[in-house]
Amino acid sequence: MQEVPRKASPAGVVAGDGRALLSRIKGPRDLDRLSSEQLEQLAGEIRTFLVNEVSKTGGHLGPNLGVVELTIALHRVFDSPKDKVLFDTGHQSYVHKLLTGRQDFSKLKAKGGLSGYPSRAESEHDVIENSHASTVLGWAEGIAKANEVRGCDNRVAAVIGDGALTGGMAWEALNNIAAAKDRPLVIVVNDNERSYAPTIGGLANHLATLRTTDGYERFLARGKDLLERTPVVGKPLYETLHGAKKGLKDFIAPQGMFEDLGLKYVGPIDGHDIEALESALTRAKRFGGPVIVHCLTEKGRGYQPALQDEADRFHAVGKIHPDTGLPISSGGKDWTSVFGDEMVELGKERKDIVAITAAMLQPVGLDKFAKAFPDRVYDVGIAEQHAAVSAAGMATGGLHPVFAVYATFLNRAFDQVLMDVALHKCGVTFVLDRAGVTGTDGASHNGMWDMSILQVVPGLRIAAPRDADQVRAQLREAVEVDDAPTVVRYSKGAVGPAVEAVGRIGGMDVLREPAEGVTRPDVLLVSVGALAPMCLEIADLLDKQGISTTVVDPRWVKPVDAALPGLAAKHRVVVTVEDNVRSGGVGSAVSQALRDAGVDVPLRDFGIPEQFLDHASRKEVMAEIGLTAPDIARQVTGLVSKIDGLPQPALRPTGEASADDTADASEGARAKGAAEPAEATRD
Amino acid sequence: MQEVPRKASPAGVVAGDGRALLSRIKGPRDLDRLSSEQLEQLAGEIRTFLVNEVSKTGGHLGPNLGVVELTIALHRVFDSPKDKVLFDTGHQSYVHKLLTGRQDFSKLKAKGGLSGYPSRAESEHDVIENSHASTVLGWAEGIAKANEVRGCDNRVAAVIGDGALTGGMAWEALNNIAAAKDRPLVIVVNDNERSYAPTIGGLANHLATLRTTDGYERFLARGKDLLERTPVVGKPLYETLHGAKKGLKDFIAPQGMFEDLGLKYVGPIDGHDIEALESALTRAKRFGGPVIVHCLTEKGRGYQPALQDEADRFHAVGKIHPDTGLPISSGGKDWTSVFGDEMVELGKERKDIVAITAAMLQPVGLDKFAKAFPDRVYDVGIAEQHAAVSAAGMATGGLHPVFAVYATFLNRAFDQVLMDVALHKCGVTFVLDRAGVTGTDGASHNGMWDMSILQVVPGLRIAAPRDADQVRAQLREAVEVDDAPTVVRYSKGAVGPAVEAVGRIGGMDVLREPAEGVTRPDVLLVSVGALAPMCLEIADLLDKQGISTTVVDPRWVKPVDAALPGLAAKHRVVVTVEDNVRSGGVGSAVSQALRDAGVDVPLRDFGIPEQFLDHASRKEVMAEIGLTAPDIARQVTGLVSKIDGLPQPALRPTGEASADDTADASEGARAKGAAEPAEATRD
Repeated sequence: MQEVPRKASPAGVVAGDGRALLSRIKGPRDLDRLSSEQLEQLAGEIRTFLVNEVSKTGGHLGPNLGVVELTIALHRVFDSPKDKVLFDTGHQSYVHKLLTGRQDFSKLKAKGGLSGYPSRAESEHDVIENSHASTVLGWAEGIAKANEVRGCDNRVAAVIGDGALTGGMAWEALNNIAAAKDRPLVIVVNDNERSYAPTIGGLANHLATLRTTDGYERFLARGKDLLERTPVVGKPLYETLHGAKKGLKDFIAPQGMFEDLGLKYVGPIDGHDIEALESALTRAKRFGGPVIVHCLTEKGRGYQPALQDEADRFHAVGKIHPDTGLPISSGGKDWTSVFGDEMVELGKERKDIVAITAAMLQPVGLDKFAKAFPDRVYDVGIAEQHAAVSAAGMATGGLHPVFAVYATFLNRAFDQVLMDVALHKCGVTFVLDRAGVTGTDGASHNGMWDMSILQVVPGLRIAAPRDADQVRAQLREAVEVDDAPTVVRYSKGAVGPAVEAVGRIGGMDVLREPAEGVTRPDVLLVSVGALAPMCLEIADLLDKQGISTTVVDPRWVKPVDAALPGLAAKHRVVVTVEDNVRSGGVGSAVSQALRDAGVDVPLRDFGIPEQFLDHASRKEVMAEIGLTAPDIARQVTGLVSKIDGLPQPALRPTGEASADDTADASEGARAKGAAEPAEATRD
Repeated sequence: MQEVPRKASPAGVVAGDGRALLSRIKGPRDLDRLSSEQLEQLAGEIRTFLVNEVSKTGGHLGPNLGVVELTIALHRVFDSPKDKVLFDTGHQSYVHKLLTGRQDFSKLKAKGGLSGYPSRAESEHDVIENSHASTVLGWAEGIAKANEVRGCDNRVAAVIGDGALTGGMAWEALNNIAAAKDRPLVIVVNDNERSYAPTIGGLANHLATLRTTDGYERFLARGKDLLERTPVVGKPLYETLHGAKKGLKDFIAPQGMFEDLGLKYVGPIDGHDIEALESALTRAKRFGGPVIVHCLTEKGRGYQPALQDEADRFHAVGKIHPDTGLPISSGGKDWTSVFGDEMVELGKERKDIVAITAAMLQPVGLDKFAKAFPDRVYDVGIAEQHAAVSAAGMATGGLHPVFAVYATFLNRAFDQVLMDVALHKCGVTFVLDRAGVTGTDGASHNGMWDMSILQVVPGLRIAAPRDADQVRAQLREAVEVDDAPTVVRYSKGAVGPAVEAVGRIGGMDVLREPAEGVTRPDVLLVSVGALAPMCLEIADLLDKQGISTTVVDPRWVKPVDAALPGLAAKHRVVVTVEDNVRSGGVGSAVSQALRDAGVDVPLRDFGIPEQFLDHASRKEVMAEIGLTAPDIARQVTGLVSKIDGLPQPALRPTGEASADDTADASEGARAKGAAEPAEATRD
């Protein structure tokens, strides 16, 4: 795939480190006095800056290379912050940052550095911080309503990608935007579908002021030809992609949905021609109602390694070498690929297993499965709701769907998990990648809510595997459940070494037993998922304080293992450690299970506090919120010191927590000779 | 508005109670041998049955009267249960029930009787039980995929109303359905927008086999004229309605979105002409890909009182007199109208307050506000996600939006509450109507999840008013918060008498104090919202057992009041009672707050167990799950008897629970002379 020459010559990466113009831009209004030639030069400088800087820090390179001219034009036409310039899924806001006074990218996404997304704390020019897709039209509509009600004539421009238009929220917003024909609002569709790129350039210029369906049909036809001749991801995926794009056509084609809805349409515009963009945006801004400006951009524009990347055009990169674009990384197996490989094995064994992704086939590790079973994988677009509901339908039809998704994005489908999958007792497995603290991508990317909100879902079971072996084993257990939703959640990044169990109590793995001869261990430490090594470290630290500890990994954290209350009753204190918000999380569930069993052993739950987490490395975030072995060990030590020597709480255990539950307890963890909770006496 | 004669004469309500044909229909295949005339007669018998029966029990009358012929035709063409006939928002499934062997409607929606929605437990012909809208296309797509993967040629027909097409899930599903041109799936759009009704009859017949935009344009134009001459709900609402309908046009018009997406289009069809319907459905069923069949139906068809009801065409009725259609009800103020009246007052006082509804203006009590402030109310369609996101935008633009919604439907917008409203610190108030156990509408209508899932949202505050005065007061407190989301949640139906506070501790109202002279009361009872009278009754029952009780209503249940741990420490046991699922609910939050303060007083939390609740009256459901005063009093008595006389757990309170927090405690509740928790000693 090669770059196509356009009328306006492309502003590629310029040689060297030239920032002559860029360094003089302190705010959007500094763009006003630049000539056409200077704007072109500026675009080149920005591309160079992005490639050089983002290759050092990692970040969303491709999307930002694609919107250099568009962002310049937006800030020349709209007067931010009075006018609002909004970005959907703000990872393409780097250029916006550069033009609004933020040019130190040395700590991009790192603690104390610039966020990878817009950030209100950074700039009055930023509005939407959230990185979940398809929201921008709703935001824009709300702000436009506020302008209307308050009688001010500030304008709103919303930039949305073609992919985000597949999300239902975009449709809901459009329905409402179209209903108010006198409320000004500019929608910029950033159409960067690269498959069409080679044919776009000339056509786009040609079509810029034309408004005929014909031209667009030709454009689409050529794209279709190309797609059909490029079997990149298999036919079903092609069809999905194609379907989404065909849907898009109706959003953007002159005779399509937008105009019928009453939305004025301008375009398609060459998204790399600043003059054409300015002209279109100016007309749109002056119009007294909603307008769509359709821009054709090229993801990875001007950077050869990105253009040559078939998979995702350098959508997001880790640290890379700026010339070759090759990653500078450590290697090592990650959670995602352990899952991906096991899915292929499962696919071979069971023909009823199908896979679902919401526009993230590769990031969630389903690419291998897609290659092996192209007729059993479904990319539904950025449509988590549909992913869950259609999974319920598939399960009802006799399949076992596995929907792999980033943990944070499952929030979008909470209602569907509850009302469609669980209420209907459908065997659907949700695999939550990037669960827990993810770090540098900031607040909205942390997968820290799932184990709380899913606690309320009747019948649903949650597995939190601690290592690669457990991912494989628990995924297999999950897909065996055919009458309820199951969840397998794991962390982001490299998977740690195997953590062996030394025993088993109920369904729980015992990871560490108290020293020989301890009759009543002090602490029962309940470790969740990837935090197992940290919990073992905590136990070591406690050991040095003379505090004896049993460490268990429940493996399935919902429902609470039936053997847990009985085991808890044999310890002085219970401590839970999870990589999830504390409110309503695993610790809360364990606490409730103990109450229900009448086991009132004091419990302390460690997890993520109820707050949004600033971007920083996972390690830094964990330290900041006190989720480290020394922090926890210190607090547990303090706790044990308070109860040491005091009589045990004396409620009679009730419910299912009986001695039988611990029948298969390992020798050490059986808490030899530990007294049963004292019988309560009345006065 | 009068009924328009059609080519096929309408099957109105027949005289008397004739069920000659209906009573012989034991299953769908019994329809096969009926003649045209007999089918017409059957339709008449069904209407009579519905009016007579539903007026006795209450239920969704209008929607079912509109789909009599459509349902007959569907079951003649599709062979259920081999083929799947699916209904969106299944309240229009009564006719389906009658045709699939369920003709005893005497206990419709009552305990032990038929569900008001499809129910898998009732019949193999039922698939989707969920009453949340816009899901059916996703279900259908999933089932069609399963048919494809499994290589069977069963067919799927999905019935969706025009209103449900405004939900984003419908768009997500369509995008995917359109992507698979060889996967059979019949979408029946039940277009019952009554504003168009008078012009539909003749036109629909005329257009049945035509496929031109012209005809549809004329049809729309006439509808538009009518709408513009009928200022029912004010201009903004008209515009919203109009916009949605215009959007719908593109779904259904021959040259519109469906066909461009590759979806075959059949229609519009007169939805009361069984022969025309059968013909269209048969063609659609035979087609080897996705087809849309556009049916124009009349809500309330054949029942004059329904047709004369401007507001919602008897969408859902309580018990009514079958001839007049007038309700047989008790009167009395309900929670909804208390809110609705106060909103009008607030609207007068503050020009920045705007109201949002998701297609339920009247049911959530915003009709008065809409009349008073037509430019400050927004009906966004069945689009809770958009409601929340646009509210964030409005708040950012300087308004204070109040989004009133049934508690169960807020689940749809969980991600937006968290990521858009809370993360961006927007002052948006969510008013959750029908919170807690609602009863007869079954599992998916209970508003029992909100106080759990919202616990994780940083900064969000939840008010649970106990009576009408508190609704007014707490709504006012909520709209004062301009940097975080606030929630006001209340029950369904009649609001009880005022429950006066006898004191205040921190922000909590004391509803009852222990008897004079009690030095250390036994129980701290934390009452949530409308359960205050029940909690007072529990205290009375405990009193008779010699157990002294303090009853507090925290008013704001999130965050947990800072004075609560200190107060708890002065009691022997803490009991929480809430009308919400126990997992992660208020009891869990209180428990966590006590742990964090180092107050290890035993706690028991009463609430809704983690299960879906079968339909029955609220009272019956509450009894079934043990949420009654005698049940709870008995359990608390047992609990207190176990700890009576035993030493208190002896952890030192830490954190913010200090004596100062109770400085404004009323005399009785100050727990005179209660010992501070004992200082822990080491060995």
